[in-house]
Amino acid sequence: MKAVQYREIGKGPEVVEIDTPEPEPGQIRLRVTAAGLCHSDWFVMDLPADQYIYGLPLTLGHEGAGVVDKLGDGVEGIEVGGAYAVYGPWGCGQCRACAEGRENYCTRAAELGIAPPGLGAPGAMAEYLIVDDARHLVPLGDLDPVQTVSLTDAGLTPYHAIKAAQQKLFPGSVAVVIGAGGLGHVGIQILRATTAATVIAVDLNEEKLALAAEVGAHHTVLAGPEAAEKIRELTGGAGAEAVFDFVGAQPTIDTARAVVAVDGYVSIVGIGGGLMPTGFFSTPFGVSVRAPYWGSRSELIEVLDLARSGAITVHTERFGIDDAVSAYEKLHAGTVRGRAVVTP
Amino acid sequence: MKAVQYREIGKGPEVVEIDTPEPEPGQIRLRVTAAGLCHSDWFVMDLPADQYIYGLPLTLGHEGAGVVDKLGDGVEGIEVGGAYAVYGPWGCGQCRACAEGRENYCTRAAELGIAPPGLGAPGAMAEYLIVDDARHLVPLGDLDPVQTVSLTDAGLTPYHAIKAAQQKLFPGSVAVVIGAGGLGHVGIQILRATTAATVIAVDLNEEKLALAAEVGAHHTVLAGPEAAEKIRELTGGAGAEAVFDFVGAQPTIDTARAVVAVDGYVSIVGIGGGLMPTGFFSTPFGVSVRAPYWGSRSELIEVLDLARSGAITVHTERFGIDDAVSAYEKLHAGTVRGRAVVTP
Amino acid sequence: MKAVQYREIGKGPEVVEIDTPEPEPGQIRLRVTAAGLCHSDWFVMDLPADQYIYGLPLTLGHEGAGVVDKLGDGVEGIEVGGAYAVYGPWGCGQCRACAEGRENYCTRAAELGIAPPGLGAPGAMAEYLIVDDARHLVPLGDLDPVQTVSLTDAGLTPYHAIKAAQQKLFPGSVAVVIGAGGLGHVGIQILRATTAATVIAVDLNEEKLALAAEVGAHHTVLAGPEAAEKIRELTGGAGAEAVFDFVGAQPTIDTARAVVAVDGYVSIVGIGGGLMPTGFFSTPFGVSVRAPYWGSRSELIEVLDLARSGAITVHTERFGIDDAVSAYEKLHAGTVRGRAVVTP
Amino acid sequence: MKAVQYREIGKGPEVVEIDTPEPEPGQIRLRVTAAGLCHSDWFVMDLPADQYIYGLPLTLGHEGAGVVDKLGDGVEGIEVGGAYAVYGPWGCGQCRACAEGRENYCTRAAELGIAPPGLGAPGAMAEYLIVDDARHLVPLGDLDPVQTVSLTDAGLTPYHAIKAAQQKLFPGSVAVVIGAGGLGHVGIQILRATTAATVIAVDLNEEKLALAAEVGAHHTVLAGPEAAEKIRELTGGAGAEAVFDFVGAQPTIDTARAVVAVDGYVSIVGIGGGLMPTGFFSTPFGVSVRAPYWGSRSELIEVLDLARSGAITVHTERFGIDDAVSAYEKLHAGTVRGRAVVTP
Repeated sequence: MKAVQYREIGKGPEVVEIDTPEPEPGQIRLRVTAAGLCHSDWFVMDLPADQYIYGLPLTLGHEGAGVVDKLGDGVEGIEVGGAYAVYGPWGCGQCRACAEGRENYCTRAAELGIAPPGLGAPGAMAEYLIVDDARHLVPLGDLDPVQTVSLTDAGLTPYHAIKAAQQKLFPGSVAVVIGAGGLGHVGIQILRATTAATVIAVDLNEEKLALAAEVGAHHTVLAGPEAAEKIRELTGGAGAEAVFDFVGAQPTIDTARAVVAVDGYVSIVGIGGGLMPTGFFSTPFGVSVRAPYWGSRSELIEVLDLARSGAITVHTERFGIDDAVSAYEKLHAGTVRGRAVVTP
Repeated sequence: MKAVQYREIGKGPEVVEIDTPEPEPGQIRLRVTAAGLCHSDWFVMDLPADQYIYGLPLTLGHEGAGVVDKLGDGVEGIEVGGAYAVYGPWGCGQCRACAEGRENYCTRAAELGIAPPGLGAPGAMAEYLIVDDARHLVPLGDLDPVQTVSLTDAGLTPYHAIKAAQQKLFPGSVAVVIGAGGLGHVGIQILRATTAATVIAVDLNEEKLALAAEVGAHHTVLAGPEAAEKIRELTGGAGAEAVFDFVGAQPTIDTARAVVAVDGYVSIVGIGGGLMPTGFFSTPFGVSVRAPYWGSRSELIEVLDLARSGAITVHTERFGIDDAVSAYEKLHAGTVRGRAVVTP
Repeated sequence: MKAVQYREIGKGPEVVEIDTPEPEPGQIRLRVTAAGLCHSDWFVMDLPADQYIYGLPLTLGHEGAGVVDKLGDGVEGIEVGGAYAVYGPWGCGQCRACAEGRENYCTRAAELGIAPPGLGAPGAMAEYLIVDDARHLVPLGDLDPVQTVSLTDAGLTPYHAIKAAQQKLFPGSVAVVIGAGGLGHVGIQILRATTAATVIAVDLNEEKLALAAEVGAHHTVLAGPEAAEKIRELTGGAGAEAVFDFVGAQPTIDTARAVVAVDGYVSIVGIGGGLMPTGFFSTPFGVSVRAPYWGSRSELIEVLDLARSGAITVHTERFGIDDAVSAYEKLHAGTVRGRAVVTP
Repeated sequence: MKAVQYREIGKGPEVVEIDTPEPEPGQIRLRVTAAGLCHSDWFVMDLPADQYIYGLPLTLGHEGAGVVDKLGDGVEGIEVGGAYAVYGPWGCGQCRACAEGRENYCTRAAELGIAPPGLGAPGAMAEYLIVDDARHLVPLGDLDPVQTVSLTDAGLTPYHAIKAAQQKLFPGSVAVVIGAGGLGHVGIQILRATTAATVIAVDLNEEKLALAAEVGAHHTVLAGPEAAEKIRELTGGAGAEAVFDFVGAQPTIDTARAVVAVDGYVSIVGIGGGLMPTGFFSTPFGVSVRAPYWGSRSELIEVLDLARSGAITVHTERFGIDDAVSAYEKLHAGTVRGRAVVTP
């Protein structure tokens, strides 16, 4: 089968022909109908050899959807021909976090060598994908896989970040979304659909701010040295009860710190490498700062139900598998609008 | 192998010889080290034929512990020789409730014909037990299986009920425990270990009240027409923030209603068949009433960790499998102190 | 000043001339700009003498808004000329519930003789209203008092009921609203603005169902013997995660019980006198039933912020104070559309 | 009356004679029975003139208890002769945070010039104290004021920090308490009384570790470069679900960061001036970091109820008001065991 692999440190993705895998007992083979590209794929491929921990060759793709093609022995509750999205942050399934479906916080995955598809295990950017357990599949039903696949990360990650802040997102509160790209533009929609908070979007890019407004942001603010002051003004001086930083670079984190209200909440979602100095004299009284990671199994079910209700839509650009390399190049260049998806 | 089965409506349990089962792919076979008896076994065996839904013959035992004896194909994360407790309320594993490990509230189990061991599936009251999936096992570690097995129901059920009421169990609050038997005496210990609430135990039986005091109840009150007034007095007139009724008969439910405080919480755990008329003019302002069922996967992990810390101890009476029938008779007669356990 | 009073058991409201009250230290006098009529006023006036506990004469009106006219000594943080809504469920201010602003669950109000305006204390249906403490005022800002005054009960009560059920109102869940009148039609808007739940409205009256659809209900169902089955169908058989019964009569409560899902939530808000028999064999596993009362101080702030954002609108019919008696008659006859408001 | 004042920048506290204040309408005058000394008094007195914002002269003492001596006009619910503890973090009483009794996060206090007693308003270190509003008093009942007064800060502050982390403090979890001094030794007792977490205490001082063990810590670890490794070992490598840093200096914050588990919680309570760099690559997945401040009104009620139940005891050293200056000197020198209290 065809697969998009990262085969050599520093060399970028390639489309290759590899053996089609067979499902072992308990496993499920999907015929992939859509696989999403993500900036974190480039984060992985940009790592120097001494920091690279994902194995080579690595079939890319941690956002996947497909149709069940073949079942390993002993799989129950899944039928051949059914359409599913793949829950990506695979854990051990048995520790306390996994017992609550919060496999994204599995305490034993690293020790047991368990890794998400596309980030250690063979990923979805191929004609077929092996999923290790039925619990990692969520029924798609009528949802279009190409429109939906990105929600498994670009929807689930902001959803998880926002749900954790729910107590701060009461009517009358203000939520600031920094970065209106792949995750941010979904985050805005999630905030609008699940809370009555006022949403302020911040971005460096006017086009992305236009997208933010289109998908529901009440206010848009151009990133830069005056952004914090502008947000303070929009909040009557009090600041924002919740800030979601989908960039996570030092300048955006500094903005987050400058605009969060007393007893407020900052979620650093983006992996831009910035850090917020947190403590009594650095943030307003009672501020919480969290760096969440991906999301839980029930949250993925909820995100897909949100999509089903029409409340969230991912803007996607579609590529055939043979064009996957150029899709990755466009992603690197920042010229993809919304989210790029490969359909093998 | 030997097994304790209910084979004929109205006939009571029997010890029989049946084939030792083989684990299919994904399944685990335990050599049972302990199996708990429960009043609900009698509830099941006392049902008339037209209400009996558990299949015949039924191997009894929904509280089980054992040592892994044989693995079906594809089982991961479980090793032969390991000691485990069995999580009983098996669900589909994939609906939203199951995705959070709250399989006790699985929305699809009935439709899919999934039932707990001992309550539809073959139970633990046998030399060997087939567990359908690794996720239904929790490591025992050094815990003694005989002392611990009852916690899978008689510990998990009160733990779940109490955890759901946690917001009411602040320092200064009062928790009333009605019924100081198998579940109640564990519930008292859970309340003492995990909250600072004042605990009032109520029972018809002076010996059980003595046990209640021994395991930590601050006050004991003899059940009866004056119990409610006595509890009101102990609470300075305000009533109890939380009431856990481990009997659930009409008189105990009436007591619960008579003593719950404004904005309080009543948990009807016992299956005594009583009902609380709930509404604006029947309960104080803001009272919640809930009939919980068993508990979640992470809650079982937590209960076993409580036992490990020494915070809860189940009083048990031990029987060999050949004495299982007389053990059930003692249970029926109400002469078991604490919880009866069979060790095959 | 003019006031609308209930002066004699069984006689109905009257417009009378009484002395204008003076604010004592700590009190605030409002010039009333709007006062809402409520079915519970009739509930009070329909009580027989031996159950009537509100004192005579009783100035009616537990929904009030006004402009500060005069301050008693020692009042801080309130300025003459400011426009405010009145928080109605006055408590002692010092018990644990009041310390959290949940004065609706004050444990000492009855014992101390503290009662809400219009339900013991002189109410808002007059030219001037004495408010006992600055903490019972919430700034109106630019909100129109006539459009807003009903939110102090008809908005706050459903808001409180819905917020308590928030964990059940995840995306993909279903909320059933029974009764699309004064409280119900606001409840639907609150659900739409603060959750992504699918909303099903139930009413006996086609016009009210039309209003329900207009304000955001996804589905409407005519009350009656087939309503429960229809709702089950709309939920794919699973039932509703949350049911809000704004009628609370026995037939509506029976419907609530028939449609609530496993681990679901029933809120009995209406004072129709029905009762739900709650217990292990009467409701699905894990169902909670609560009879909430009014709401908390912060919840009133949140409701007014919802109105400010445009998310909720009360349909109101306006009357001068001299027409208050006929307004009450229309209310009794059920011919008011939405909520009746008197503007002294 | 006698009062302990800070009168001149850099000069330290003095005992002086000043006019006895009169309560204005709405205010209460207490005859002070106990006033607690706190390290933060020295923090304030050590500030250079350009950072000092508390006014001069400043009567010290933000921990206070007393007997009501005189009521201003319009005060209700408080009786002359009653014994009370003072809730210190005074807010506006009307913003959303204050409406929930979380006056410690009042958003308007600074703007309105409202400050806690002893930190702007005249404090409790005097023969008489003016309390601005009845809501800032909590009944002491039979509690001894000298033993109890420190709980208004040294009890309330850790209680608030711990309660915010409650979801992480499940049975089987580990809580690390850094600093076993005034706040820390109370924090250990609160953890033991309200959770089943395993408590590990860390301090530089062997005597304080002995106190930690005495009041309930399961393990004690000497602070230093090997502390983190030792804690990792005690947690089987997983780290601690919650870390409470009552010192807040850079080395203790570094320890906190080194020992917190995946999805764990760090509370930086101490004002030692350290900062935790928080973000995706600096902390384990999902870690939350918060810098809480003091506590809410209902939390103070709960802390006093904990003391009433015998679950927490503050170790105190008692001084007459004429010895207040030397008491402050001992505090500065670090030779007070537990908490210093002045009894005017």
